[in-house]
Amino acid sequence: MQELVAYTAYLTIETPQRYEIRDITDDVERVRAEAKLWDGYVLVSTMHITSSIFVNDHESGLWQDIMTWLEALAPNKPGYQHHLTGEDNADAHLKRMLLGHQVLVPVTEGKLDLGPWERVHYGEFDGRRPKRVLLKALGIAKAQARG
Amino acid sequence: MQELVAYTAYLTIETPQRYEIRDITDDVERVRAEAKLWDGYVLVSTMHITSSIFVNDHESGLWQDIMTWLEALAPNKPGYQHHLTGEDNADAHLKRMLLGHQVLVPVTEGKLDLGPWERVHYGEFDGRRPKRVLLKALGIAKAQARG
Amino acid sequence: MQELVAYTAYLTIETPQRYEIRDITDDVERVRAEAKLWDGYVLVSTMHITSSIFVNDHESGLWQDIMTWLEALAPNKPGYQHHLTGEDNADAHLKRMLLGHQVLVPVTEGKLDLGPWERVHYGEFDGRRPKRVLLKALGIAKAQARG
Repeated sequence: MQELVAYTAYLTIETPQRYEIRDITDDVERVRAEAKLWDGYVLVSTMHITSSIFVNDHESGLWQDIMTWLEALAPNKPGYQHHLTGEDNADAHLKRMLLGHQVLVPVTEGKLDLGPWERVHYGEFDGRRPKRVLLKALGIAKAQARG
Repeated sequence: MQELVAYTAYLTIETPQRYEIRDITDDVERVRAEAKLWDGYVLVSTMHITSSIFVNDHESGLWQDIMTWLEALAPNKPGYQHHLTGEDNADAHLKRMLLGHQVLVPVTEGKLDLGPWERVHYGEFDGRRPKRVLLKALGIAKAQARG
Repeated sequence: MQELVAYTAYLTIETPQRYEIRDITDDVERVRAEAKLWDGYVLVSTMHITSSIFVNDHESGLWQDIMTWLEALAPNKPGYQHHLTGEDNADAHLKRMLLGHQVLVPVTEGKLDLGPWERVHYGEFDGRRPKRVLLKALGIAKAQARG
């Protein structure tokens, strides 16, 4: 008999820097284990519109390249219409769309089913305050042994 | 006993402008309610390859910034190979990839589990004709009271 | 009685070119059929961090436009910090983020529920070696006839 799993957890992240990248793969695995998810998906989705969730290499040089590249394509500068509201973070709203705001992590036989270099990252573009990330497991628990 | 939910609805959107952004969060909630989804996901996915689904701020200044920015990164101009087919919308195919074509909206305890500023948007880059958006709820209905 | 489906398959792709786009929609349908998925999702996710999965038009001119455009926004050039590790593919890590690394294909009544022009593509930016793509179906099988 299959048992359905639907389990939700929230992570709070407050980065000391305005712009920062953090590897959160271990948090995803922790939530998968809490959920007892055997087969299915874990959705990882930032609840803020100035940060990203993305999968890429855990390599600090690449992280720098990503930040330099995002700044070139979506610069932090004056003149955005959004700033007429009093905000100064229009670049963060754009940067977050380049990397995306959520990923779906597949789970197979009770493990995150990721390639050897795939790591789940949180990208912050307007930090120094607490932000929430939602993790929702959906799928099936391990079938009970029939004895 | 858990009851599985798999429910699909389609939305038709025809924008008066070629380029337009529209908040469709209320449609997502309506479909969630029709589906009686208590815990799970609602996939929101455009069925056309010249439009986007994305999550960002409901703020008209930012919407302008997004359109200006997309035009800078993926301009509407002649010279694309795709135009040799007779089309004139290669920029729309590129713009839609920058913002993405689908999002997964988490549902927890019968509500869209979004952050305070998260809103689901439809981005049109080749409008003035009817386009379809698919919404598919997957998860569980509220457990029945046992009395 | 609903029967839950959770089914996983892997595809191996080795492109002769370093940069290449390939339509893999038929593979997605094959996996859907193997899974006997009637209603739900098929996640299609590359397991490598230098390639993409995206939905767009099956049109060779557009494929060229996409590659030209990616090269303009995330050029293959020296000077990336990531190259200090001995790698030469930082551009591939960036290009893959512009197009995204996964899509969720909706399935309704036993068919991929795609718009008329939607096709699922694999985008390779560091090819000439075997890469794996994960496909995971989640949802329900067709209800049994009650006789």
